[in-house]
Amino acid sequence: MPLKPSIPKGTRDFSPDEVIRRDYIFNTIQSVFRLYGYQPLETPAMENLSTLLGKYGNEGDKLLFRILNSGDFLSGIFSEDLKNTDSSSLSSVICEKGLRYDLTVPFARYVVQHRNEITFPFKRYQIQPVWRADKPQKGRYREFYQCDVDVIGSDSLLNEFELVKIIDEVFTRLKISVIIRINNRKILAGLAELYGVQDKLTDITVAIDKLDKAGIEAVTGELLAKGIPHGVVEDLKKILAAGGNNNEKITLLKQIFLPSGTGMKGVEEIETLFRYIESHQPCSSVKFDLTLARGLDYYTGTIIEVKAASVNIGSLCGGGRYDNLTGIFGLEGVSGVGISFGADRIYDVLTQTDGFSAVKPEPSRVLIVNFGANEIDYALKIQKTLHKMGISAQIYPDNIRIGKQLAYADSLKIPYVVIAGENEIKNNEITVKNMISATQQSISFEKIGEFFESGTVQ
Amino acid sequence: MPLKPSIPKGTRDFSPDEVIRRDYIFNTIQSVFRLYGYQPLETPAMENLSTLLGKYGNEGDKLLFRILNSGDFLSGIFSEDLKNTDSSSLSSVICEKGLRYDLTVPFARYVVQHRNEITFPFKRYQIQPVWRADKPQKGRYREFYQCDVDVIGSDSLLNEFELVKIIDEVFTRLKISVIIRINNRKILAGLAELYGVQDKLTDITVAIDKLDKAGIEAVTGELLAKGIPHGVVEDLKKILAAGGNNNEKITLLKQIFLPSGTGMKGVEEIETLFRYIESHQPCSSVKFDLTLARGLDYYTGTIIEVKAASVNIGSLCGGGRYDNLTGIFGLEGVSGVGISFGADRIYDVLTQTDGFSAVKPEPSRVLIVNFGANEIDYALKIQKTLHKMGISAQIYPDNIRIGKQLAYADSLKIPYVVIAGENEIKNNEITVKNMISATQQSISFEKIGEFFESGTVQ
Repeated sequence: MPLKPSIPKGTRDFSPDEVIRRDYIFNTIQSVFRLYGYQPLETPAMENLSTLLGKYGNEGDKLLFRILNSGDFLSGIFSEDLKNTDSSSLSSVICEKGLRYDLTVPFARYVVQHRNEITFPFKRYQIQPVWRADKPQKGRYREFYQCDVDVIGSDSLLNEFELVKIIDEVFTRLKISVIIRINNRKILAGLAELYGVQDKLTDITVAIDKLDKAGIEAVTGELLAKGIPHGVVEDLKKILAAGGNNNEKITLLKQIFLPSGTGMKGVEEIETLFRYIESHQPCSSVKFDLTLARGLDYYTGTIIEVKAASVNIGSLCGGGRYDNLTGIFGLEGVSGVGISFGADRIYDVLTQTDGFSAVKPEPSRVLIVNFGANEIDYALKIQKTLHKMGISAQIYPDNIRIGKQLAYADSLKIPYVVIAGENEIKNNEITVKNMISATQQSISFEKIGEFFESGTVQ
Repeated sequence: MPLKPSIPKGTRDFSPDEVIRRDYIFNTIQSVFRLYGYQPLETPAMENLSTLLGKYGNEGDKLLFRILNSGDFLSGIFSEDLKNTDSSSLSSVICEKGLRYDLTVPFARYVVQHRNEITFPFKRYQIQPVWRADKPQKGRYREFYQCDVDVIGSDSLLNEFELVKIIDEVFTRLKISVIIRINNRKILAGLAELYGVQDKLTDITVAIDKLDKAGIEAVTGELLAKGIPHGVVEDLKKILAAGGNNNEKITLLKQIFLPSGTGMKGVEEIETLFRYIESHQPCSSVKFDLTLARGLDYYTGTIIEVKAASVNIGSLCGGGRYDNLTGIFGLEGVSGVGISFGADRIYDVLTQTDGFSAVKPEPSRVLIVNFGANEIDYALKIQKTLHKMGISAQIYPDNIRIGKQLAYADSLKIPYVVIAGENEIKNNEITVKNMISATQQSISFEKIGEFFESGTVQ
C-alpha cells in the first residue's frame, strides 16, 4: 500500500484557479514596472552558500535551505572527524549551495558579476520564489514569491518618488486601499548623533521597528536595556510621538537638527520627496512616519512600508535606499533603492476584499459535445473555426452520455456548450447552449464567427 | 578582498534581453495550451524524497538534489553510527526533501492528493523549472524549464491527436520547422510478444532508444548482449528498417501481428491517430517511426518525439501515453497522455535561426531627458501623459550632460528621446528625437497623444 502523498510543510500546490488569480497579481505588478521602464531579470534558485551566508544575520543563516553536494559527499572526510562533528560544521563541509533567501542579495551578486555588461542606472525587476526554513504558520510559507523592483547606480530622489508612484499605481489597479509610510534612516542616524549614541544606531533601529507590534512602553524598555540613557529615551519618545501633518513634522525636526548634520540631510530628503509626492496627487495615503524603522541593517536613506488600509495583515510592500549593497561583493560606492511586493499577502487581502471578482478562472469559452466517431469530424471542424478566431474551445474527449459532458462544462464554468449531432450535421448548423442563462439556439455553421464575436459571448 | 561572485555550475542568470526572449517562448506555448482548454498548475520546488525516489531509476535517484534537514539535523544520530556511515545511507537520514526532477511525478502526486477536488478528464499545463545534478555540458543545465501539458482520466485517442495539433501549432507560431515522430509502445510490446521475449521488453526499448545516436549495429549488438536470440534480432532489424510511407508501414505490421494481440491494438491506434492527423493537414511533417522508443519505462501507448527539421540539437518536445502513472501513489486505472516542451533547446534553435528577430527587448519607448530641478515638473507631466496612454516612458533620474543621457537611451535601444528644456517649457512644446532615424521634431504639448499614438511610433 503506497504512502498517502503529501508535500513538505510550508509549501503549497496552486490549483488552476489559484494560479490564475496569482498571475493576475504578478501581471498587474509587472505591467506597472514595465510602464516605468524596469527590465526583467532572473537568477538561479540555487546560489553558492558563500554568496548567501553572512548577509541576513545569524538568524537568517539558520533559515537557509542547504543543498547536499551531489555524489559521494563524504569522500575525503575521515570517519574519525565525522564522529566528532556537529550539524553546523558538517553542513559547511557537505553543502556548497543553498536556495535563495531573497532577491536582493542575488541581485547585488548579479550586478557585481556583470557590471561590465550593464548600462547604469540599472532599473530591474525580478519576480521569483524564495525559500526560508522558517516555522510555517498562517500566512508564512517556506516557499513564497517576491516581486522586487530596484534602480541601482543613481542617487537621485526621483527614484524614490518613482517607487512611491509605482506602489500607488499597483494598488490602485488592484483596487486595494493602502497607507504608504515613509521615513529616512538618516533621521534616525541624526537622532543617535544628536544624543551621542551613534554606536547604538542598530539597537535603536531594531527597537523602533517593533513599535507597531509591541507598543511604546516595550520599545522604551528595550532602549533602556540596551544602555541608552534615560533622558535620551525620553526625548526619543517625545519625537516619535510627534503629531501633526508631514510638514509640521519636518518643521519640528529642522528645529532639532544642526544645519550640517546627517539628520538635517535626512529631513531635506524627506522634504524633497514629499514635495514630489504632493504634486503627483497619489490615490494612496502617504505619510511621513518617524516611527518607521525597518529591521534590515543595510538601509541608509529613505525607507518605505505599505499596509492595507482596511485589512490587518502586516506590510504588503516595503523597501528603501541602500548606499553600499554591492560593497559586500567588492563593488563600492554604488547606491541603489528598491522595494519588494509580497504577492502572498496581496493574495490574502484580495481574497478578503472580494478583489478577485473580475478575475474569471475559465479554461475554455466553449465545450463541444462528443457524439462519437461519426460526428467527430464535424466537431473538429467547429473547434478549428473557433481556434482560428482565438477562442479557447475544447471537444470532450470521450463519447459518454451528454449529461455527463454538460456536468463537466458546468464544473469548469465553461459558458457555452456546442451540440452538433446527426441533425445539426444534416442541416449544417450547430446548437449553442448558454450554460449561464440555460437557453439554447440554433446557428448555421457559417454564422459561428459572427455569433461568438458578438457581445453576447464576451 | 571579497571573493569574485559566481553562481553554481550548470545554473544561469538570465539578463533582461534573455528573459524577454524566453517569455516569448513561454507565452507562445501557454497561449496554445489555453486555446485547447488546458489549465495551469503549479507545484512546490521541493517535494518529499519519498515522492521522488524510485521514480526515475537508479540513475535518476543519483541526480536528485537533496535538501539538508534544517536545524540540528544530526540530533539523534549516535557518533559511533556516524563514524561508520557512507554518503548514501547518511543522506537518507539527514535529508527528507529534494528539488523536483521533472513535472510529471509532481503532477501524478497532485492528482492523487487532490483527486476529490479535480474534475476529470483533467487537462493541465505546468511551466516551471526542474533540477538535475547532471554533469553540466553544452545545452545541458542543472536548472532548466519544462513546459508540460497532460490530460489525465481519458483513454480517447482524440487526446493524442490534440497533442499533435498543439505541437504543430506551437512550432508554427514559433516559425520552427519540425518533424514529429510517432510510435506506439504496444507495437514494441507486440513484437516482443510475437517473438516470445516479453520479459526483454525494457531491454528492447532501451536499446532501440539509442538507434538515433548509436546506429543499428550498436543496437543489434546490445540486443544480442541482452540475450535476445540472433534470429529475433535479425527480424527486428528488418522491421525497424522498413521503409515506405505511414500507410505502408501500417499494412506491413498488420500482416505480422495476430488480429487479437497487443501489437495489433497498437497498429490500430496508430491507424486511427494518423487518420485524424491527415484530415487536419498539419504544417509539420508527421511520421510513423517504428524506431522511436523513448527511454522512460512508464509509457504504454502512443509515444511522440519532435525534432527541428534544420537544426541538429536533439528533441525539442516529447511524451506519450501512460496507463498507470498515478498507480505509484495508490490511484490505479487512470490513463493519461502528455508531452513536454524543452524551452532551453527551443531557445537555442531560435537563436540559431534568427527566430527572435520579431522579439524586441525594449525597456521603454520613451526616455525623457533630465534638465534638473527647474524643468523636472514639466518632465514629470510629460511622463504622466504618456503613462496614461499606456506607453512605457522613463525620466533619466540624474541631471547629467545630455550626451550621456542619449547614450543611455541608445544602449537600451529606447527609440524616442523627449527633450524638454527651458525653451520647450516656454513654448509649451516638446522636442522628440527619433533614435533610429536620428531626426528630431517639435510637437506642442497637446499633440503628444496624437504623435505617440500614430503609426510612426509603433
